[in-house]
Amino acid sequence: MKNEVNRAQWAKTKYALGIDLGGTGTKFGLVNDEGKVLRWNSIPTQQYPEIDEYCDVLCDGMRRLVADEGLTMADIVGIGCGAPNANFYSGCIEQAPNLPWKGIVPFAKLISERMGVKCTITNDANAAAQGEMIYGSARGMKNFIVITLGTGVGSGIVIDGKLLYGHDGFAGELGHCKIDHSGNGRLCGCGQKGCIEAYASATGVARTAKEIVTSTTQPTLLRQVADIDHITSKDVFDAAEKGDLVAKEIFDYTGRLLGEKLADFVHFSSPEAIILFGGLTKSGHWIMDPIREALDANLMPIWKGKIPVSISVLKDSDAAILGASSLAW
Amino acid sequence: MKNEVNRAQWAKTKYALGIDLGGTGTKFGLVNDEGKVLRWNSIPTQQYPEIDEYCDVLCDGMRRLVADEGLTMADIVGIGCGAPNANFYSGCIEQAPNLPWKGIVPFAKLISERMGVKCTITNDANAAAQGEMIYGSARGMKNFIVITLGTGVGSGIVIDGKLLYGHDGFAGELGHCKIDHSGNGRLCGCGQKGCIEAYASATGVARTAKEIVTSTTQPTLLRQVADIDHITSKDVFDAAEKGDLVAKEIFDYTGRLLGEKLADFVHFSSPEAIILFGGLTKSGHWIMDPIREALDANLMPIWKGKIPVSISVLKDSDAAILGASSLAW
Repeated sequence: MKNEVNRAQWAKTKYALGIDLGGTGTKFGLVNDEGKVLRWNSIPTQQYPEIDEYCDVLCDGMRRLVADEGLTMADIVGIGCGAPNANFYSGCIEQAPNLPWKGIVPFAKLISERMGVKCTITNDANAAAQGEMIYGSARGMKNFIVITLGTGVGSGIVIDGKLLYGHDGFAGELGHCKIDHSGNGRLCGCGQKGCIEAYASATGVARTAKEIVTSTTQPTLLRQVADIDHITSKDVFDAAEKGDLVAKEIFDYTGRLLGEKLADFVHFSSPEAIILFGGLTKSGHWIMDPIREALDANLMPIWKGKIPVSISVLKDSDAAILGASSLAW
Repeated sequence: MKNEVNRAQWAKTKYALGIDLGGTGTKFGLVNDEGKVLRWNSIPTQQYPEIDEYCDVLCDGMRRLVADEGLTMADIVGIGCGAPNANFYSGCIEQAPNLPWKGIVPFAKLISERMGVKCTITNDANAAAQGEMIYGSARGMKNFIVITLGTGVGSGIVIDGKLLYGHDGFAGELGHCKIDHSGNGRLCGCGQKGCIEAYASATGVARTAKEIVTSTTQPTLLRQVADIDHITSKDVFDAAEKGDLVAKEIFDYTGRLLGEKLADFVHFSSPEAIILFGGLTKSGHWIMDPIREALDANLMPIWKGKIPVSISVLKDSDAAILGASSLAW
C-alpha cells in the first residue's frame, strides 16, 4: 500500500496527456516531463457531430495510450488541450466556426468528468506558443508572437513570459483582423467578411488559387490539378517549385497580406520575434520572403530589420500535443 | 536636524513633478499624492531647437513651481515625464518625428542631473493610460487601451494591470499601423506613408478638410475658414454643428478608419474598454458615433456590442501631468 502511494506521488510529475483539437483532425498524445511524446493517436473531428460521442471516443483513445504504456490514470497529472475558440478561464469552447459543435461547449468539464483528472484548455495557437516557449524557437524569450497558418490563422501572444488572455480569455484572435473592409471581402468561418484568415491560411491560399484558375485565363500548372475544388496549398507549392509564375504570385500576394498585418502586431506589442507554425509554412521561402519583405516595408523605422520571422523548429506532429500537454504540468 | 529628517521622510510620499512633453507645447505641474495638480505652467516645445536650452528652461520652470508652493526639491519624490517616442527602459527619447531634437536624446538623465531627483519617462500615451488607471475612467480595470488623438495618434495599452512595454520598451505605437498600404498614402511624421496617425489625429482631420476644400467643388462652410492651411479639427466641428454635410462626412470617414483599426486592437488584446483622449474627442458624437459603429461592424461575434469606447473623464489640462507624475511615486 505504501509503495503504491509513493509510486503515485512520484508519477505525479511524470506524465500528461495533450490534445490538439483541430477543425479536421484531433491528435492526442502521452507526454513525459522531459517533453517527449511517448505515444500518440488521432481521430477525425468532423466525423462526430455529437460532442458526447466525440468525447467518448477521444477519452477511450487516451485511456488506451495510457494502458499501452503500462500506466494507469493515477500516473497522469493532468490533461491539456489546445482548441479553436477555447476559453482558458471558462474551460469552454465557444462558438467555434470550424468545429462541428455550435454554441458553448463545456469541453474541459466533459473531459475531466470522463477521465477523472483535471483538463485545462486554451486556444490552439496559445498551446503552440506555450510549446515554442518551453521546447521550441522561443526558449528564453519573454515577448513573442506565434501565428499558426493551417485551416485558419491563429495566434498565441506571449507578453512578459505569459500567454496573453485579455479581459475575457479570448485575446489573440489575430486571424480575424480584416484586410478588406469593403464588405465584399471573402466570407470567413467567423461570419465576418474580409478576415486575414480567409486569405493567409493554407485554405486561403487554395481559395486564391481556385479564384485565379476559374476566373482568369492566365496559363498556369495549377490548371492541371484534377479537382479544382480540392486544390491545396501543397499544389500551389509544387507548381511554384516548377517555376510556375501564377503560383509564385499567389505566395507573393498571400505573404504581402500577412506581412502587412504582422507589422500592425509589432506596433502593438513589440515582440522579440514572430514564429510561424502550421501547414502553410511548408511552402518555405515562397511564402517567407514576401512575408518578411512586407513586414519590414510597413514597420516604423525603429523596428525595420529588427524583427525576425522564423518557422517553428518543432516537429509538426509533436508541437501542438507538447504545447497542449504543457498546460497540465 | 532630527525634525528636518522626519519632514523629508514624511514629504517623500507627498509631491511629484509631472511633465507632459508634446510636439507643440510642454506642460509641467506639481502634484500631491492625492492626485491634485497644485500648480502648473507650460513652455512652447518647438521654440527650443537645442535640447540643453529646452531642459534649462523646463527645469527653471519646475523649480519655480516648487518654490511658489513653499517647498524645496527635498520635498519632491521624483519626476515623471510622458513624451512621444520615450523609452521607459533606456530613459531616452528616440527619433521622435514630432519633436525638434533628432536622434537619441537621454532625456531622463538630462533632467535628473539638473534637478537632483530621479526622472522617469514613458511614451505620452502610456502616461495618459497610467493617469486613467489611477485617477480616471479605467479605475479598477486591468485590461484596457487608451488612444490619444491629438497632433498624433498615440496608444497606451494596459495588460493585467501593467503598461505594455514589449521587448524593447516601444510597444503601443498603434498610430503607426497603416490604413493604406498602396505606397500612396499620406506621409506620416514617422517617415512611413499611410499610417492611421496621418488620418485620424486632430491634424489628420484638418488634412482631410483641406484636401476636400482644395481638390473638390463641394459646397461647405469650411470654405469660409480664412486660412485653409491652418484649418483645424475645431473648424470642422463648428461646421458639423451648423449642419455642414462635408464636415459630417469628414468625421464619418475619420471615425470609420479609427473604428476599423480599434477592432484589430480588440482582436489582439481583448480589452475591457477603450478610452479616447485628446483634442479630437472634443468633437463628441460627430466622431464617437462612427467610431463605435465601425468598431462593432468589424469585431468577431463574441465581442460585438461588448467593448465600450468612451472619452476620458479627466480634465485635459490635468490628465497628462497626473499620468506622468504617477511614474514618480
